Amino acid sequence: MSTKTQTKRKVGVLGATGSVGQRFILLLANHPNFELAKLGASSRSAGKPYKKAVEWKQTSLMPSQAADLVVTECKPEEFADCDVVFSGLDAEYAGAIEKAFVEFGLVVVSNAKNYRRELDVPLVVPTANSDHLDIVAEKVRLAKAKGEKRPGYIVCISNCSTAGLVAPLKPLVDKFGPLEILTTTTMQAISGAGFSPGFPGIDILDNVVPFISGEEEKIEWEAKKILGHLKNDKTTVLNDDSMKVSAQCNRVAVSDGHTECVALKFAKRPAPSVEEVKKCLRDYVCEATQLGCASAPKQAIHVLEEQNRPQPRLDRERDGGFGVSVGRIREDPVLDFKFVVLSHNTIIGAAGSGVLIAELLDAKKLL
Amino acid sequence: MSTKTQTKRKVGVLGATGSVGQRFILLLANHPNFELAKLGASSRSAGKPYKKAVEWKQTSLMPSQAADLVVTECKPEEFADCDVVFSGLDAEYAGAIEKAFVEFGLVVVSNAKNYRRELDVPLVVPTANSDHLDIVAEKVRLAKAKGEKRPGYIVCISNCSTAGLVAPLKPLVDKFGPLEILTTTTMQAISGAGFSPGFPGIDILDNVVPFISGEEEKIEWEAKKILGHLKNDKTTVLNDDSMKVSAQCNRVAVSDGHTECVALKFAKRPAPSVEEVKKCLRDYVCEATQLGCASAPKQAIHVLEEQNRPQPRLDRERDGGFGVSVGRIREDPVLDFKFVVLSHNTIIGAAGSGVLIAELLDAKKLL
Amino acid sequence: MSTKTQTKRKVGVLGATGSVGQRFILLLANHPNFELAKLGASSRSAGKPYKKAVEWKQTSLMPSQAADLVVTECKPEEFADCDVVFSGLDAEYAGAIEKAFVEFGLVVVSNAKNYRRELDVPLVVPTANSDHLDIVAEKVRLAKAKGEKRPGYIVCISNCSTAGLVAPLKPLVDKFGPLEILTTTTMQAISGAGFSPGFPGIDILDNVVPFISGEEEKIEWEAKKILGHLKNDKTTVLNDDSMKVSAQCNRVAVSDGHTECVALKFAKRPAPSVEEVKKCLRDYVCEATQLGCASAPKQAIHVLEEQNRPQPRLDRERDGGFGVSVGRIREDPVLDFKFVVLSHNTIIGAAGSGVLIAELLDAKKLL
Amino acid sequence: MSTKTQTKRKVGVLGATGSVGQRFILLLANHPNFELAKLGASSRSAGKPYKKAVEWKQTSLMPSQAADLVVTECKPEEFADCDVVFSGLDAEYAGAIEKAFVEFGLVVVSNAKNYRRELDVPLVVPTANSDHLDIVAEKVRLAKAKGEKRPGYIVCISNCSTAGLVAPLKPLVDKFGPLEILTTTTMQAISGAGFSPGFPGIDILDNVVPFISGEEEKIEWEAKKILGHLKNDKTTVLNDDSMKVSAQCNRVAVSDGHTECVALKFAKRPAPSVEEVKKCLRDYVCEATQLGCASAPKQAIHVLEEQNRPQPRLDRERDGGFGVSVGRIREDPVLDFKFVVLSHNTIIGAAGSGVLIAELLDAKKLL
Repeated sequence: MSTKTQTKRKVGVLGATGSVGQRFILLLANHPNFELAKLGASSRSAGKPYKKAVEWKQTSLMPSQAADLVVTECKPEEFADCDVVFSGLDAEYAGAIEKAFVEFGLVVVSNAKNYRRELDVPLVVPTANSDHLDIVAEKVRLAKAKGEKRPGYIVCISNCSTAGLVAPLKPLVDKFGPLEILTTTTMQAISGAGFSPGFPGIDILDNVVPFISGEEEKIEWEAKKILGHLKNDKTTVLNDDSMKVSAQCNRVAVSDGHTECVALKFAKRPAPSVEEVKKCLRDYVCEATQLGCASAPKQAIHVLEEQNRPQPRLDRERDGGFGVSVGRIREDPVLDFKFVVLSHNTIIGAAGSGVLIAELLDAKKLL
Repeated sequence: MSTKTQTKRKVGVLGATGSVGQRFILLLANHPNFELAKLGASSRSAGKPYKKAVEWKQTSLMPSQAADLVVTECKPEEFADCDVVFSGLDAEYAGAIEKAFVEFGLVVVSNAKNYRRELDVPLVVPTANSDHLDIVAEKVRLAKAKGEKRPGYIVCISNCSTAGLVAPLKPLVDKFGPLEILTTTTMQAISGAGFSPGFPGIDILDNVVPFISGEEEKIEWEAKKILGHLKNDKTTVLNDDSMKVSAQCNRVAVSDGHTECVALKFAKRPAPSVEEVKKCLRDYVCEATQLGCASAPKQAIHVLEEQNRPQPRLDRERDGGFGVSVGRIREDPVLDFKFVVLSHNTIIGAAGSGVLIAELLDAKKLL
Repeated sequence: MSTKTQTKRKVGVLGATGSVGQRFILLLANHPNFELAKLGASSRSAGKPYKKAVEWKQTSLMPSQAADLVVTECKPEEFADCDVVFSGLDAEYAGAIEKAFVEFGLVVVSNAKNYRRELDVPLVVPTANSDHLDIVAEKVRLAKAKGEKRPGYIVCISNCSTAGLVAPLKPLVDKFGPLEILTTTTMQAISGAGFSPGFPGIDILDNVVPFISGEEEKIEWEAKKILGHLKNDKTTVLNDDSMKVSAQCNRVAVSDGHTECVALKFAKRPAPSVEEVKKCLRDYVCEATQLGCASAPKQAIHVLEEQNRPQPRLDRERDGGFGVSVGRIREDPVLDFKFVVLSHNTIIGAAGSGVLIAELLDAKKLL
Repeated sequence: MSTKTQTKRKVGVLGATGSVGQRFILLLANHPNFELAKLGASSRSAGKPYKKAVEWKQTSLMPSQAADLVVTECKPEEFADCDVVFSGLDAEYAGAIEKAFVEFGLVVVSNAKNYRRELDVPLVVPTANSDHLDIVAEKVRLAKAKGEKRPGYIVCISNCSTAGLVAPLKPLVDKFGPLEILTTTTMQAISGAGFSPGFPGIDILDNVVPFISGEEEKIEWEAKKILGHLKNDKTTVLNDDSMKVSAQCNRVAVSDGHTECVALKFAKRPAPSVEEVKKCLRDYVCEATQLGCASAPKQAIHVLEEQNRPQPRLDRERDGGFGVSVGRIREDPVLDFKFVVLSHNTIIGAAGSGVLIAELLDAKKLL
C-alpha cells in the first residue's frame, strides 16, 4: 500500500469545471495510481480554489482532494509535472490547447472530438481496442531507440454512443471476422449533453428528440476506425471502410445510460449461431482486466438473458459503469442478429474510459 | 345541421370502462354522425351509470353523453339497435364476445388482436389501406344480391406501432412499388399499456424498457398484411410476404405518441430520390379525406423539414391525432432511406382509427 | 360575425419570440375581438418575418396570422395604431420599454414584474380582482372630464404561482372577510422558466428543486396587493398588510400546471364551515364571465370532490386553462382550512390572464 | 475480522420478495454483524430458491448470499435460530404473523404499520429517538431479573415521510423544547409505493398526485409519538399531544427520496435564532454513531447552505441514505422557521432504519 502511494502518478484535468471534468475528478479523487495534482479551466476560474470556481452537479459529493486545489489556466507549463493530463475541454478550445500540451511533451487523454480522426492518434474504447495503443508504444519505442525522452502524445476517447456500440462488437469481430453491415438506433441520456445549460427540461419531459447534432456521423465514422486494424508498422489505423454503418440517434428522458438497438451482419457465411455469439461475449476478457487495471470491469460484457433487459436505471452501474450490458440477442429477419446494448455514457462513454486508458498506458509503461 | 342530427347512427362501445373504451367515448361523444347509445363492460360494472362504473383517467372531462348511460353486459341483444359497435375489449374476452356480435348480425370495429390475422377480416389503418374494406363491400354486395340483409362482420384496427409505421409507407408502396426490406426501432408511449394497472412508474422514470411483449411480432406480421393487396375476388388479403420486416420495440417515458426510426429499401431499382419520396408523401390525400369523413385528417402525412422533428410532445396532436408526422427523410448508408415517424398511439393507433373506419364504412354505405 | 370582424381591435406583442410572447400569439391568433397587428422583439429579430425570427416551441402549430408578420423593434411609434400592446418582455428590458409605450399613450398589459409593486398600477388576476381596473377607469374618466384623450397606462399580470393561489381566495375573502394567515407550498411546472435555455433537464429529471429565485417573495407580496382593496378615491391599492403570508416554492417535473398546497386562517371567528367554503367557490361567477368576455371561463373555480385531484396532467386544461381547480378542501389541524389548487401557469398564470385583462378593458370601454 | 465473522448474528426477512424485502436483503447481504439465514414469503414462493421466487427490481444486482436461499413460509418455527427477523410484510398479513413471531420469542423489526400505535411498542427512527428502545431494555431486564430468557418483542420502523421529518426535529426538541406547531408538505418518491404493481407511470409522468392514502394521518400521529418521551417506568411512550401537526402529502416524479417543506413553531419564547438552529443540527451526533453501529451515518443531519438544496437526485445518497439533509433554514413569516428536508425513503425511511435499529439492539445487548 505504502509503496503504491509513493509512486502515485500526478495527473491534471483540463476543463475541470465542466460536466466531463467533474466526472474525471470524481474518478481520480481516490484513485490507487493517480494523484489529482492540477486542475485547469478558463481564465475566469483560474486563481480560485476549485470549490469556488465550480458549480458542482454530481450525485456524489465533491472530493476533498479537489475542493481546495487552486484552478490554473490551461497552459502546458502549469502541468509540467503531470504524468498524464485528462482533457474535458469543449471542442472549441481543445484543438489548440491539446496541441500545445503534446508539443510540450505531455501525455493527453482527451474526450474532445478534435483529433479523433487523425489516423496516427489512437481512438480507444479501453475495454475493446486497447491494442490501438500500440501506435503510442511504437512512438515511445522509436524515441527511446534514438535516446530521446518519452514524447508527448494524445489518445482520444471515443464518442459516448460509439463506445457502448463497439464494446461488444470488438470481440465478435475478432472471433467471427469483419461486419458487412451495422445499424444502431440510439436512445441517449441527457447527461451526455453536459450542463451549461445542458439539455432543456421542457424539451425532454414527456418527449423524445430524434436528433443529436453530429452524433450519427460520429458513430458511422468512429466505428470504422475502432473496429479497424493497425497498419503493419503500427503507425496508423486502417479503418474498416468495407463495413456499412447506419445510425439513428435520439435523446430520451434518461439521466445516465445510453440504450442502443443494434443489428448487424457478418461478412463471412455462414454466420455464427446466437449461442456462439453469446458465448463469445461471455468469454471475453479485455486486456485491461488481464493487466489488472484498477478500473477495469470484472466482466467487460454482461450478457443478460431476461427478456426486458438491459435497462438504464437497473444496469448502467454494472462494474462501476465500466461494464457494458447486452440483452435480447436474437436472430434478425433482415441481417444476422439484433440485440440491445446499454452503456454508461459518462463512464465507459467518456471520463471513465479516459481514466482506464491512462491505467492501460501506465501498465504498458508508456507514461 | 338538423338533418344530420336526425340521421345520426347509434353506436355502442364494448370494454367501455377501459383505457381504449374511454378514448372511444371521448371521440364519439360529440360526433356529427354517431350517437353514443350503448356502453358494455364486465358484469361488475353492468347496471351502474357509466360515471359510477368507470375510473375516468382522460385529460378531457367525461362527456355528459356518457356519464349517465347505464352500462350493460357485453351481450349482442343489448346492442341490437347499434349500427356499429366499437370494441376496446381485452384479448382475453374479445374473441368470444366479438364472434357472438358478428353472428348476431352486428358490425364490429375492434381494437383487439384476436381476428387481425384472419385473411378475410380487413386489418385497416384508415388513412392507409381503406381499400381493404372492399372485402366487406363484397360481403355486403353478395348478401344483398341474395336478397339477404346486411350481414354482421368485423373490421380490425391495427396495432398502434404498426399504424404509425405503415401510414407513410402505403403511399410510397403505391407509387414506387413494394418494399424489399423494412426496419423500425420504436420508442413507444406508456398510454399504450392501458391502465389497470398500466405501466409501472418506477419502471419508466429515468429509464427505457427495451421490450414490449408480442409487439415486434405484431409489427412484423401486420405490416405485411396492411401493405398487401386484395385477392382478385376481393375475399381475402394476400400478405406481402416478400418483404422482410424487422422491428425492435422500446417503451420510453412519454405519455402519448409513438416515435419510430424507420429504414427501408424498395424492391425496384433505381430507388426514388429523397425529393420524390417527400413529394409523394406531401401529395398524398387519403380516401377518408376525399370522402369528407368527419375525423379524416386535413393532411394524412405531415412531412417536417426541421432537423429535430417530429417530437411526441410537439407533434402528436396534428390533425387531432389523425395526422402522422414524418421527419428527417434522408438516404441511408445501408438501405435506401431512413426517417422518423411519429403517430398518436391512442388516436390513429387505436380508438381514433376505429372511429374513422366506421366513418368510412358509413360513407361507403356498408353499415 | 362580419360586424365583429370589422371592429376587431389591433393588438401588438412585445417579446414576441420568447416563451410568453409565443403564448400570447397562440391566444390572439384567432381571437374574436383582437387582430394580431404588430410583433416586437430585439433588434436581432427585427426585419425578419416572424417564422424566421422565432424558434417556435409550442405544442400547437404557429398560427398563420403570425408567421409572415415582419418583426419590428420594440419602439412605441411602431405600435401607434395598436389598441393594446401585450408585453412578454424580460424584466431586464421591460422597465424602460413599457414606460416609453405608456408615455406615448399606449395601453400596455405586461407580464413583466417591473411595475407590479406600483400602487397606482393594477396588478390583476382577471378572474379574481378585476375590480382593481377601476384605477384605470378613474384615470380615463378624469382625462375625458378634462377633454383629453384616453391616456396611456399599464396593467400588470401577476406572477404565475400567485395567480393560481389568489384565484380561489378572492371570493372567500369577499364573503368571509380577510385572512389572518396564508401559507402555500408550490410544486411548479418548468414551462414557467421559459426557454432560452429554460430549466435544465438534468436538474428536473427524477428530481425536485426546492427553490425558485424571487418566487416566494413575489407570492408573499403580490397576494397582499391582489387581495387588498382600492382606496376610496380609486387611485391606488391598499395592500392587505395585516395578512401574514408564507410561501415555499419548488420546481417539479411537470410541463404545464402549478400545484399548490394551501392552508389559511380567516381573521373573523367563527370561521366558515368546509361546506360554506365549497359553496362559496362553486357559486362564484367572476366579472369577466358576467361581461361575456371571450376567454372567460365558464366556471372560474372548479371544486373537485375526488380525493386525489386536482392533478396537473388531468386538470390544467379546464376552461381552456382559465379555470382554476381546487380539491381536497378540508379542515386543518393548525389553521382553519387546507386544500390543493391547480392552475395553468402559462394561461391563467401569464399570457392568458393578459388576454382576458384586455378583454375586460375592452368590455369596460377603457381601450 | 475473523472473530466478527464467527459471531455474526443470524437474521431473517419476512416478505422477502416484495419491495421492502428486497431492500432488506441488499442491506443485509454483506453486513459485518448479520448473516442472512432465512427468507420468508407467501406459500406461492415457499420452496423455491430466492432467485426463482423473486422479480428482482433493484438497481444493484441480487446478492449471491440470497440467490440460492430457499424461501420458506412465514412461520416462526422456520426462523427459530434467527436473532432478529426483519418484516417487510404488507399490513394485511403483518398483524397476525408478527404477533406469532413475538409470542414464539423472536425479535421482530417491522416496517408494517400494524403495531406502530401500541404505546408499549417503540416506534423508532434510529438516528432520532433510539432512546425509545429503553422500553425493550426494560422488558429484557425484567425477564432476566426473573431468570427468564430474553422475551420476544417488536420494534416498529416509522412511516417513510415521518422518518425524514422527525430526524432533524428530535435534536431541536431536545435542545429548544417541544414544538407548538409543525407543518409539512411532502413531495414523495414513487418507490415508496412498492411494485406489484406500484405507482402507475401514466399517473406520475408530467404530473403530481396530491394525495397518498393514509399518509397524512400517519405523519400527524407518528410525529407525536416519536417526539414524545418515555413514561418514568419506561414501559410506554407518552405522545407529545400538545403539538399540533398538519401534513399535506404529494406524489411526484422522483424514484427515490422524499422532499418535505417544513415549518414549525417552538412552544418556548423567545425562539432560538436561525444560527442556533443550524448549529444544533450540525453538532448533533446520534446514539447509533456514538455506539459505532455499522450503518450509522457519519453525519446524521447534513445542513446545506446552497440556496437550491437539498435535491433528491443529488443528496439522497448521503451517508448511504442514512444521512438526512436539511436546507434553506430561514425564518418564517407565520411560524418560527421553515426549511426543506430530504431523506431517502427506502433507506432511512424503511429497510435501512430497520437494519440500523437491529444494530442498535445488538450494541445495547438486547438481541
